[in-house]
Amino acid sequence: MDNIEKLEQIVTNAKQWILDAGAQIRQSFTTNTLEINFKENPSDLVTDMDKQIEKFFIKKINETFPKHRILGEEGFGDDVKSLEGTVWIIDPIDGTMNFVHMKRHFAISVGIYHNGSGVVGLIYDVVNDELFSGIKGKGAFLNEQPLKKLQAIEIKEAVIGMNAGWLLEKERIHPSILPPLIQSVRGTRSFGSAAIELAYVASGKIDGYISLRLSPWDFAAGKVIIEEVGGHVTTICGEQLVLLNKQTPLFAARPGLHSEIVNNYIKN
Amino acid sequence: MDNIEKLEQIVTNAKQWILDAGAQIRQSFTTNTLEINFKENPSDLVTDMDKQIEKFFIKKINETFPKHRILGEEGFGDDVKSLEGTVWIIDPIDGTMNFVHMKRHFAISVGIYHNGSGVVGLIYDVVNDELFSGIKGKGAFLNEQPLKKLQAIEIKEAVIGMNAGWLLEKERIHPSILPPLIQSVRGTRSFGSAAIELAYVASGKIDGYISLRLSPWDFAAGKVIIEEVGGHVTTICGEQLVLLNKQTPLFAARPGLHSEIVNNYIKN
Repeated sequence: MDNIEKLEQIVTNAKQWILDAGAQIRQSFTTNTLEINFKENPSDLVTDMDKQIEKFFIKKINETFPKHRILGEEGFGDDVKSLEGTVWIIDPIDGTMNFVHMKRHFAISVGIYHNGSGVVGLIYDVVNDELFSGIKGKGAFLNEQPLKKLQAIEIKEAVIGMNAGWLLEKERIHPSILPPLIQSVRGTRSFGSAAIELAYVASGKIDGYISLRLSPWDFAAGKVIIEEVGGHVTTICGEQLVLLNKQTPLFAARPGLHSEIVNNYIKN
Repeated sequence: MDNIEKLEQIVTNAKQWILDAGAQIRQSFTTNTLEINFKENPSDLVTDMDKQIEKFFIKKINETFPKHRILGEEGFGDDVKSLEGTVWIIDPIDGTMNFVHMKRHFAISVGIYHNGSGVVGLIYDVVNDELFSGIKGKGAFLNEQPLKKLQAIEIKEAVIGMNAGWLLEKERIHPSILPPLIQSVRGTRSFGSAAIELAYVASGKIDGYISLRLSPWDFAAGKVIIEEVGGHVTTICGEQLVLLNKQTPLFAARPGLHSEIVNNYIKN
C-alpha cells in the first residue's frame, strides 16, 4: 500500500462493510424469500443474496477507493487479469450450499492484494459473528483476540478438512495418494466452506485443509490470515499458488505438518 | 412410561440436567486444564469432562429415578444387557475430538427408552446453546420451536453427512457402493459428531447421515427426534436397528430419500 494511513483506512472500511454485509444476510433469514439458481451444475448454487452482497462491496469500494480493482465470484467486478495495483478478491457468500441448506457454516471472504502480495485477509462467519482477520506483518485476530502462532504437531494428532468427494476425483489426484493420509491422521472433517475451513486452520481448530478445486476468492483471504500465524498455503504439491488460477488444488496447514504431508504423502 | 405425569417429570428433569451439564462444559473452557486420554487408539479420545458429565447424569438419575438404568459411553452406568424397563442412554460428550480440538461442534446426547422403545431424545449443541428434543408422539423441537415434518426431496438436491474415512472401510461396505451415492448427491459434509449430524437431519439442515460404526449412545436420542419428524433411522441396509449393538452401520434420512438411497444405491 502507498502508506500506512491508507492501509488503516482500507482495513477499517473493509471490516465495517463486511459486518454490514453480514447484517444484511442475517436480516434476509427473517424477511426474504431466497431466489436460488444453478451455475454450471446442480451442486453449484447461487442466490440473489450472493449477488446483492457482491454488488454492495463493489459500490462501497468504487466510491471510496476508485483506483482499486475488484475480482468477485459472481462476476460483477472488474475483468481482473493481473494483480497490479490494489485488487479486492471477494467471495460474497463462501459456502452457498450451506447458506441455502443450513443457514449456517458460510462466510464472507475478502482478500486485499497489492501488486500480487496479500496485505489484508478478512473472513466473517456471519451466523457465529466471528470475524477472522489478518494484516500482513501485523498478526491475525479472531474478532479483537490475537490468534496464536501455529505450532507443529504429529500427524497422528492432526484433524484435516477434506471432503469425501476428493477421494473420487481420480483425474485430479492419483487414487493411491489420499487414502494413506486419511488413515494416518486423527480424523477428517468437511464443513463445506473453504473460507471457514481456512479460518479454522488459522485459529488451530483444524490442522490442515485440502481442496482440489478452488478459485481465488475461496482462499485469497485465508492465505493472508494463515501466513500471519506461521502456517503455509500452497498447491497440494507444496508449490507457490498462482493466485488468479481457477481450479487450484490447495493445501493449507500448520508449519511442520505441511512439509511432512507434502513430502511423505503427496509427493511420495 | 407408567403415566404422563411421570413422563413430564422425566422430560423436565432431563432437560434441566442437560442444560446444567452444558454450563459445566462451557465453564471448563475458561477455568480447567483438560486431561485428555486415549481409549483404543489415538483417534478415540476421552477427557475428564466426558467422565465428569456422565457421573453428573448418573448421580441425578439415581437420586430422582432410582429404578431407571443407565447406559453411558464412559461405562460408569449400569451393565445394560437388555432394554427392559426405563433405560437412559447417554453420551456425555459426543464429538470428543471436536471438543478437544475445536471447542465446538460437540453435543450431549440423552435418549430415554422404555421397554425397548424410544420415548425421549435430547441432543444439546452446547456451544450454540441449541437443544434438539423429541418426545414420542408429541413432536420434535429446537429449543421451544417445533421442527417441521420432513418432506421428500430429489437425490440431486440432497446433502449427506458422511466422513471421507468410510470410503476406505472396505471390510464394512463394498468399495463400489458409496462412490455412486457421493456422485449423485449435491454434496457431502462431515461435522464430526453423530449426535449433531442426526440433529441436523431432524431439523432439515442436512438430508441424510451415514456412519458405518456407531454405538447406542451415539444415536439413541437422534433416532427418537428424527422419527418424530417423519424421518427414518435404520441400518445402512434399511433394516431395523438393534439398539444395544455396538459398531452399528447406520443410515438416517428424510422419508423418500431414505428408501431411494437404500434401494438404488446400497442394495443395488
